[in-house]
Amino acid sequence: MKILITGGAGFLGQRLARELLKTQQKQIITELVLADIAPLRDAVLLADPRVRSVTGDLRQLLADGVMSGIEGVFHLAAAVSGECEADIDVGLHTNLDTTRALLDACRSLMQPPRLVFSSSLAVYGGNMPEVIADNTLPMPQNSYGTQKFICEQLIADYTRKGFLDGRSVRLPTVTVRPGKPNKAASGFMSGIIREPLAGVDTVCPVDPQTGVWITSPRFAVAGLIAAFNTPREQWGGRTAMNLPGLSVRVAEMIAALERCAGGGGAAVAARVRVQQDETISTIVGGWPWRFDPVRAGALGLRGPASMDDIVAEYIADYPAAVAVAAPTTDAP
Amino acid sequence: MKILITGGAGFLGQRLARELLKTQQKQIITELVLADIAPLRDAVLLADPRVRSVTGDLRQLLADGVMSGIEGVFHLAAAVSGECEADIDVGLHTNLDTTRALLDACRSLMQPPRLVFSSSLAVYGGNMPEVIADNTLPMPQNSYGTQKFICEQLIADYTRKGFLDGRSVRLPTVTVRPGKPNKAASGFMSGIIREPLAGVDTVCPVDPQTGVWITSPRFAVAGLIAAFNTPREQWGGRTAMNLPGLSVRVAEMIAALERCAGGGGAAVAARVRVQQDETISTIVGGWPWRFDPVRAGALGLRGPASMDDIVAEYIADYPAAVAVAAPTTDAP
Repeated sequence: MKILITGGAGFLGQRLARELLKTQQKQIITELVLADIAPLRDAVLLADPRVRSVTGDLRQLLADGVMSGIEGVFHLAAAVSGECEADIDVGLHTNLDTTRALLDACRSLMQPPRLVFSSSLAVYGGNMPEVIADNTLPMPQNSYGTQKFICEQLIADYTRKGFLDGRSVRLPTVTVRPGKPNKAASGFMSGIIREPLAGVDTVCPVDPQTGVWITSPRFAVAGLIAAFNTPREQWGGRTAMNLPGLSVRVAEMIAALERCAGGGGAAVAARVRVQQDETISTIVGGWPWRFDPVRAGALGLRGPASMDDIVAEYIADYPAAVAVAAPTTDAP
Repeated sequence: MKILITGGAGFLGQRLARELLKTQQKQIITELVLADIAPLRDAVLLADPRVRSVTGDLRQLLADGVMSGIEGVFHLAAAVSGECEADIDVGLHTNLDTTRALLDACRSLMQPPRLVFSSSLAVYGGNMPEVIADNTLPMPQNSYGTQKFICEQLIADYTRKGFLDGRSVRLPTVTVRPGKPNKAASGFMSGIIREPLAGVDTVCPVDPQTGVWITSPRFAVAGLIAAFNTPREQWGGRTAMNLPGLSVRVAEMIAALERCAGGGGAAVAARVRVQQDETISTIVGGWPWRFDPVRAGALGLRGPASMDDIVAEYIADYPAAVAVAAPTTDAP
């Protein structure tokens, strides 16, 4: 099977690519095309003969025929929430128009490909019930969420028409992301764990009592792959599926950091300084943080059991990024 | 005030234009621009010095500056459901891309205009609760409904950003429409009343036990004008509003025709022949027909009281189109 990952050189794209290429998946992947605006730097992926990395604007790559022979797509590429809020045209171009171009490229194939679309909890906001159900009406309160929700609708209609076999999943905020901060309004949810563990001071731009809905990279990747592998009839409907996550307050994230950072935990956690940012607080504070993802649960999907597990997973997966004392817990 | 109606030469656009120009509205309308792909033929409107009719593709008209000085917009222009289902590209161009161009034209104005968008009950479908509430999740089951729902999202986000003051209303099927049949899947809901009253045989393409959610032209126009005139804070939120209507089975529509058509009513109703069309039955059968439009009700909006009222309204408003015996009831 020939698979395309858009945003394939991004953090989640690379994690997904590595997982897809693992032994148990080997027989099905003949070629894995990683398309991204940025060049692929992951040495493991670059060394794999099945991996082909293509770099450029996705619309140009599509025009250049990147979809040729593709049977499966993971569409992760997107402008992030902070960028979209700062410049609606960037979001409309990158998230809406480019997705449409991708969907039309799928449609032009002889065999309709399977497509997994990473949508987001950011579709929700505004006056919501306390717990988000699978059929809660999204009322996006930011441009990123609006654009994601619109793409969900297009994918559902293209699926109904038989142009592709689309499955949209709404990811909780994925944390802890390695590497440098990005412009996502949710970026601090990784930063407040990652930076202190690296011995770097960082800012928490929201009230620590803010509740958030998060998942770890391992669970996010597992959810994306399950969305791809689940038979259509079992998937159930064309509406986007809320993936499971963990409901946690930011203060509890910092407390878990302290617990997981070994002997010097208190000093590590002290590297987080609260300094509220109005724009970020408004965006993140508008997102719901309690969900009841029944549909995903029925497929056997689950989220991280605790914030301690999430911190431990990061320490286990990115040991080189951890400058502090040895962790006291193992990854789940 | 200078107002633009897109689809202004269409049936609903002309009705809306006439109503807006009536005495009680006179002081506020300085110019009413009716933009349409088809030329305006309404003699009353053509004779009104405040009316300016412009003909052409809306995107071209926008490029030619039709929005110059506009303070209010009623966006009614759309490819209808049957067209969109037959050719998704027609719908994406006419309903999605053209609406985006309109919204961007609004955004380019110095003063953000007020905009009323006519969305549709067609956003709903699939596995729904028996009664549609204001916050029921739309899961569009046809391309027309998908495109309308997407435009609602764009308008909500543009409103949030302050580019315009948008109010989206979801109209029940408007019946009885005068004139010739169009390609809307819902077209028969007018045809089964209009054609027999004109002495013409017609086909009902769905099971007469099918339930439908309808309103009359007068109530539809009143809803659009209320959406325009209601103060923002009273309008409540940026989510599209379900307008009130009447829940009725097709068989009851035909029975009302028989009652309202005077002495020869049975012969008039006998002009309706049931011959099911699978495409139309699928689209229309997928639409809900029981609603609880609480939000609209709180603004004092209401729908027709009965099917008899709807038939009587048509007979009163379009006497020249009625070939049969004098009606037995008056318009509401």
